[in-house]
Amino acid sequence: MPDSQRIEHDFLGEKQIPGHAYWGVHTARAVENFPISGTPISAMPDLIRAFGHVKKATARANLQLGVLDAKRAHAIMWACEQLIGGRFHEQFIVDVIQGGAGTSTNMNANEVIANLALERLGFEKGRYDVLHPNDHVNASQSTNDVYPTAVRLALWSGIDGLLGSMAILRAGFEAKAEAFQSVLKIGRTQLQDAVPMTLGQEFSTYAVMMEEDEARLREARALIQEINLGATAIGTGINAPAGYADLACALLAEGSGIPVVKSKNLVEATQDTGAFVQLSGVLKRVATKLSKTCNDLRLLSSGPQAGFGDIRLPPRQAGSSIMPGKVNPVIPEVMNQVAFEVIGNDMTVTMASEAGQLQLNAFEPIMGWSLFKSITHLSNACLTLQANCVAGIEPNRELLARRVRESVTLVTALNPIIGYEKAALIAKTAIASGAPIEDVAESLGILTREQIDALLVPEHLTQPLRLQAEG
Amino acid sequence: MPDSQRIEHDFLGEKQIPGHAYWGVHTARAVENFPISGTPISAMPDLIRAFGHVKKATARANLQLGVLDAKRAHAIMWACEQLIGGRFHEQFIVDVIQGGAGTSTNMNANEVIANLALERLGFEKGRYDVLHPNDHVNASQSTNDVYPTAVRLALWSGIDGLLGSMAILRAGFEAKAEAFQSVLKIGRTQLQDAVPMTLGQEFSTYAVMMEEDEARLREARALIQEINLGATAIGTGINAPAGYADLACALLAEGSGIPVVKSKNLVEATQDTGAFVQLSGVLKRVATKLSKTCNDLRLLSSGPQAGFGDIRLPPRQAGSSIMPGKVNPVIPEVMNQVAFEVIGNDMTVTMASEAGQLQLNAFEPIMGWSLFKSITHLSNACLTLQANCVAGIEPNRELLARRVRESVTLVTALNPIIGYEKAALIAKTAIASGAPIEDVAESLGILTREQIDALLVPEHLTQPLRLQAEG
Amino acid sequence: MPDSQRIEHDFLGEKQIPGHAYWGVHTARAVENFPISGTPISAMPDLIRAFGHVKKATARANLQLGVLDAKRAHAIMWACEQLIGGRFHEQFIVDVIQGGAGTSTNMNANEVIANLALERLGFEKGRYDVLHPNDHVNASQSTNDVYPTAVRLALWSGIDGLLGSMAILRAGFEAKAEAFQSVLKIGRTQLQDAVPMTLGQEFSTYAVMMEEDEARLREARALIQEINLGATAIGTGINAPAGYADLACALLAEGSGIPVVKSKNLVEATQDTGAFVQLSGVLKRVATKLSKTCNDLRLLSSGPQAGFGDIRLPPRQAGSSIMPGKVNPVIPEVMNQVAFEVIGNDMTVTMASEAGQLQLNAFEPIMGWSLFKSITHLSNACLTLQANCVAGIEPNRELLARRVRESVTLVTALNPIIGYEKAALIAKTAIASGAPIEDVAESLGILTREQIDALLVPEHLTQPLRLQAEG
Amino acid sequence: MPDSQRIEHDFLGEKQIPGHAYWGVHTARAVENFPISGTPISAMPDLIRAFGHVKKATARANLQLGVLDAKRAHAIMWACEQLIGGRFHEQFIVDVIQGGAGTSTNMNANEVIANLALERLGFEKGRYDVLHPNDHVNASQSTNDVYPTAVRLALWSGIDGLLGSMAILRAGFEAKAEAFQSVLKIGRTQLQDAVPMTLGQEFSTYAVMMEEDEARLREARALIQEINLGATAIGTGINAPAGYADLACALLAEGSGIPVVKSKNLVEATQDTGAFVQLSGVLKRVATKLSKTCNDLRLLSSGPQAGFGDIRLPPRQAGSSIMPGKVNPVIPEVMNQVAFEVIGNDMTVTMASEAGQLQLNAFEPIMGWSLFKSITHLSNACLTLQANCVAGIEPNRELLARRVRESVTLVTALNPIIGYEKAALIAKTAIASGAPIEDVAESLGILTREQIDALLVPEHLTQPLRLQAEG
Repeated sequence: MPDSQRIEHDFLGEKQIPGHAYWGVHTARAVENFPISGTPISAMPDLIRAFGHVKKATARANLQLGVLDAKRAHAIMWACEQLIGGRFHEQFIVDVIQGGAGTSTNMNANEVIANLALERLGFEKGRYDVLHPNDHVNASQSTNDVYPTAVRLALWSGIDGLLGSMAILRAGFEAKAEAFQSVLKIGRTQLQDAVPMTLGQEFSTYAVMMEEDEARLREARALIQEINLGATAIGTGINAPAGYADLACALLAEGSGIPVVKSKNLVEATQDTGAFVQLSGVLKRVATKLSKTCNDLRLLSSGPQAGFGDIRLPPRQAGSSIMPGKVNPVIPEVMNQVAFEVIGNDMTVTMASEAGQLQLNAFEPIMGWSLFKSITHLSNACLTLQANCVAGIEPNRELLARRVRESVTLVTALNPIIGYEKAALIAKTAIASGAPIEDVAESLGILTREQIDALLVPEHLTQPLRLQAEG
Repeated sequence: MPDSQRIEHDFLGEKQIPGHAYWGVHTARAVENFPISGTPISAMPDLIRAFGHVKKATARANLQLGVLDAKRAHAIMWACEQLIGGRFHEQFIVDVIQGGAGTSTNMNANEVIANLALERLGFEKGRYDVLHPNDHVNASQSTNDVYPTAVRLALWSGIDGLLGSMAILRAGFEAKAEAFQSVLKIGRTQLQDAVPMTLGQEFSTYAVMMEEDEARLREARALIQEINLGATAIGTGINAPAGYADLACALLAEGSGIPVVKSKNLVEATQDTGAFVQLSGVLKRVATKLSKTCNDLRLLSSGPQAGFGDIRLPPRQAGSSIMPGKVNPVIPEVMNQVAFEVIGNDMTVTMASEAGQLQLNAFEPIMGWSLFKSITHLSNACLTLQANCVAGIEPNRELLARRVRESVTLVTALNPIIGYEKAALIAKTAIASGAPIEDVAESLGILTREQIDALLVPEHLTQPLRLQAEG
Repeated sequence: MPDSQRIEHDFLGEKQIPGHAYWGVHTARAVENFPISGTPISAMPDLIRAFGHVKKATARANLQLGVLDAKRAHAIMWACEQLIGGRFHEQFIVDVIQGGAGTSTNMNANEVIANLALERLGFEKGRYDVLHPNDHVNASQSTNDVYPTAVRLALWSGIDGLLGSMAILRAGFEAKAEAFQSVLKIGRTQLQDAVPMTLGQEFSTYAVMMEEDEARLREARALIQEINLGATAIGTGINAPAGYADLACALLAEGSGIPVVKSKNLVEATQDTGAFVQLSGVLKRVATKLSKTCNDLRLLSSGPQAGFGDIRLPPRQAGSSIMPGKVNPVIPEVMNQVAFEVIGNDMTVTMASEAGQLQLNAFEPIMGWSLFKSITHLSNACLTLQANCVAGIEPNRELLARRVRESVTLVTALNPIIGYEKAALIAKTAIASGAPIEDVAESLGILTREQIDALLVPEHLTQPLRLQAEG
Repeated sequence: MPDSQRIEHDFLGEKQIPGHAYWGVHTARAVENFPISGTPISAMPDLIRAFGHVKKATARANLQLGVLDAKRAHAIMWACEQLIGGRFHEQFIVDVIQGGAGTSTNMNANEVIANLALERLGFEKGRYDVLHPNDHVNASQSTNDVYPTAVRLALWSGIDGLLGSMAILRAGFEAKAEAFQSVLKIGRTQLQDAVPMTLGQEFSTYAVMMEEDEARLREARALIQEINLGATAIGTGINAPAGYADLACALLAEGSGIPVVKSKNLVEATQDTGAFVQLSGVLKRVATKLSKTCNDLRLLSSGPQAGFGDIRLPPRQAGSSIMPGKVNPVIPEVMNQVAFEVIGNDMTVTMASEAGQLQLNAFEPIMGWSLFKSITHLSNACLTLQANCVAGIEPNRELLARRVRESVTLVTALNPIIGYEKAALIAKTAIASGAPIEDVAESLGILTREQIDALLVPEHLTQPLRLQAEG
């Protein structure tokens, strides 16, 4: 065996490990067992950092409670700080899709931290007789409490970022709502012309929808905050010293700056993935509404000649390899696709959650990975939607104004005066003949032109009735 | 106890049964156990008829193989014919959503058939010492083979009906494709104006899509044809006489007129619900494409003044309780909703299939019910879509013609002559200025008006290039 | 025409209506247009009652604001009270799956109320010149505000019922958790034996999961509470008098006893179906966890001889038509199937929500129907699960105790003393040889029998470590 | 500007491009527009190779039809061969999640091929006046035909690989089925003990299920084979010379070795994504059944002491960071998670398909990416499942034999002799008392011990009844 290899063993036997590797035998076996997606867990840097925080907090707790001596504890804490600082992430090589309920991820972390700590203490990598991945780095812990805790911490950070991106996009919609507040247009229901409104009212809905979704996401984040650290194997806290759970949770909150809270019932918390389903459901809601919003933007900007043409999106790239000058709504389209992905991810999370059995859910890795993708992609899509689309939207003012003037649907405002049936007669006649509703109403002898002109001031029609108020 | 009650028992104890009821103790317990949806299995008449066919075929096989004597067998066969003829379906009272892998439905059938047969033989209901639901009606059978067989038979019939409805709708699209074959219009990709085509080409796609879906559905029906009759409890054929499986399948095919085929591996067939997943997946495909088609119809008919306005759907009902004269695309909208339901049902079927364990899938009842709804609702929606919408569609010929004349996208046809970049320059200038592309091309000195007029005959643009061919 | 018919008309023309019918021409057209599921909206009595409340509140508001005179208003209010009282529901005949964004349901309500009110006033049905479905019953309203409002009111009531059923089931789990609090057993993770716990701890998790789900459901209910009454057609309040929205909402809250709240932005509220997606997502969460719980109950009771056998479920019906004496977990199985249905319904709701366009979502009918089914079926399944299963669960005490005594996994508790690697050696040797871990540890010279006996008191292993604390 | 930059332009303006880059301005804009997943399209090497094949076939067709001169055509073909050979894939940098219906992927290919060809011809990159990405590389083409064609080609290759992996796994199950063909065991339905079977029968079902799924997958692959090359922008073939479509398709089949076929209706084929939905549905079916199979493997191997324990899976890694010696079924667990991902991906594909509008589906990129992941991950999971799990499975022969001997469910075989009710009495008494069924039957006076022993030969119970045959 060349210098560049060392031998490690577990209870299944021995295995050669590259000398430069900070990971060890458990990681090596996992890499052999799970050659699925080719994407390593280092693709989720928030998760690696979260492991740094968790393992540091547990080491501190173990030190305070006498489970670890100061030398080992400080070496472990130093190693954790490397991960928190973004270093050695390339040592996290297990596939994001893995069996084993996260044990391979946890052991990857235990091994990397152990070997970093060993070097810090002046020993060679692999000297587990001095500092052991299980007995010391994982002391008072089980995968079944530290893995979900780290996943939740990582998701919390991700949600935080998503909330920021959503706020930026919302501000974009709000700016447009204000800019367009006096642009009159015809609203549409069921793709058919309805009554007048302002383009500002239309854009304000997009902002309000996002604001509500941000509130829902904050609620879901609060659920994710609840952790089961100290539960160890199945929630009973076996092998953790008395007082450890509370202490470790407090130290984790302090160290990470994330307000994690210990679950009231650790047995329940260890098997329950309801918070992931809830979070995924809320992300689905966010996706559903952003998709609807982008559907609207694509509809409203359809044209340039044979479509709705209410607005123009800023051109971002040539739309076609064959049709010269064609520009397509590519930015809303990418958000639609992210939304479809998020909705698919929700199904994955749901199935994985339902499949949990007895004291543990073995399928948290796919839940974590699915949620990570949903959060990251939504966040990125919000940013490009604002920067590359919403910020540059302009109304087709002239077209919108003409359509309001000519719209048959203005007869709606006559209901309170002439009743639904006579108004319907006017509308039907006007559509069939193409004549303005004023002419039709006059020729049918229902109202005079002066009466109609007084009634049908479009600006008045974008709010509740003033007739009685002014009468 | 009044005359109107009889006492039945099973191995859990005794139970009073209303004297008029043909169902018995097993059915009564199931009704108590499953008060879920309030919808009885009689809501699926195809399923009750299918049970008639299955139980008749098994009685004939049992008679031929000496398991049943002639008297009992003929009485059972007579009772089955009642069910096939649509009588006594109201005796099938178990909830469509039920635990127990269909045992309650099978026992409901066994009991009704037993009591009908008993009366036919001159005995009172409940005289199971003479003719027993399990020992005679269910002889050589288990729920685990007769229930899936009956469900498959019922689905086969349902698919047959759906194929008929789809053919009617397809013919409707074909008729429109022919009627509109010379109506020129501007095609659209990504909701932006693209190159010319005919409205006939557009409608022919809807017909072709359905034709393909009908072919897929026929393939899925062929999978549903495969049955596990004779498998009994777990596929090993325990308690069925040698030769029974082949005989019973043959008699079922003969009696029902449905070309059922015996599975090659009955152990596999008893636990495998892949054919349901496949069928559901194909129904989802059908739904997806009908929904897309209806989305198109709603887009194309959007307006009447501020939308695409390519076509007009026949008005079917007042569209609004407040906006007089408004007409909405309500028929396509109902198809969209059926499609969403079918896609949801597919998820239910998928989860139920995945949840099967070891030698049986206990969740076939929800699969059967979900598929029944998908098939029936799609079939009904196809019929109303054709009769109440597609049949009456009319193009807005004038608008379509004008748009083709004025469309900037016609520059695409200049690519082979002047190249993509010059064509893009013309397009961009024309859209910005509103000037016709002929004027722009001329003023930019790229082509003369005569050259352009010769190149841009819209009718020529709806098919591959003739330039070389004519050159 | 016989006496038993009357003629009504709308702007599409005339139509014969049966003389006894309280519904009119709009309803008749809808019945022709939507022959989809065969299930009328009267299958949702909460929805019909909700329409009674909404139409009564709007009539009161219209009366106070001078839109309706006292005579008509009081007649309408009387008619609404009939619906609230559960009468005339059979007059609601439109299919639950319908196009038109709920207009047909709203017009069905407007017509029934108008004709009931007309009779109350001494007129014949159909005398809309006296009291008109649109001009009077629907005054200051649009389908687009009253329909979503009524759906939300109905869902609120349904959720209330579901919360009650969940509380009953939760109490059942809590009772078992207490009864089983000293029953020791081996926990399981990933279907492999893990460390000891009590059966009471296991059952308490089911109760805690439900408690959390009830909290989530209450939050979702609070979102459903927000209504857009007063928005009329697209949220701008066209044709509603100033002050109407606030007044109508307040009167509705007062009259219905449900704490509805007016949305802050009515344009947004009229098109946004996010609260339905959120509610559906929470119902999916509830379903996911109840399904997991029922999976556990089926696993734990598997046997009677070749399974886990930790517990016995009460026998509820004969499990097999062929295997005598077999009893199956039919009650958990029905909950599993309801869960799969709810998860499918969530997909339907999600797609319907995403498909909304511009100022309105036309697909609320399928959302309402899907949510109604999810809520009702979950509620019914909770009740049967408690009454027919959980209440009668008994542990197999002897088997559980024996397994704890003999379990190799007890070596886990030795980690803090002898380290993970030596403990693994003991475990591996014990499993391979079948010898008790005490013997193995002794023969390997790792620990004496006395040391082990002192360490491995199973009762101590169901909670955090006392070793340090006691040392 | 340093040497290392060149300037390119499109109709939106100019842009600096790194001198070493083979991609150009369209790619650069796409990278700015779609910073979503961070995964470039080069992650799908089959897709890049497919573009090589498509662009080569079109160049050949253009050459033959006189659209391209020999010099340019051969340079383009040479460049395509580089991609086919796996070179320059790192130049494909557009995000896998992108708006624009694949235009950015197509233009990335057009630009890389153009610049490779330019260098081959002795020109510098960017000299599009000599050889143009649109006018020459993309001649007679549109994204709307070449992109779907390339995606289908790539999927075809992927399916081919998956079929190979499935065959390997199937052979593994077949080997076990043969090895276990005489191992008797108790079958289970609804997790309750059922009648005897052999472990070989159980494993043969897994093989048969896969065989059927392979057949379905081959059918889906045949649908994917149908391409719309020659359709250009919307299926009308605008700008492609007469005869081009047939020629290009034939050349593509010849060059790629994949039996692609031209669609009959190119307008339909250009907008229809039904084949993707069908393929995804079949992949979902495959996933559903592999997940069920893995659920079974996990159930059957549960234990080692307190579970089913029918079989032992080969240990692959330490199962727990805290419980020494624990081994978990990590390989089946990873397949479960892949299955959940595939089912989620199917939802994404379904939504993307449904969202297509009019002449094109803009959402093919997310469909392609989702299908790519499903196919690749399933394929990898099949291989690890066979190599690391199925190949090493061993039965617990002694335990299985004992359970068969002692099983109460053997009474089922007595039905044909003593009837269901007496058999149920024996079963119930035996379970309650724990006494063997022989003793119970004797003490109840139903059958003698000799009669029972003759009837209950377990080996006979794994196949249809011989009684009549032997009688």
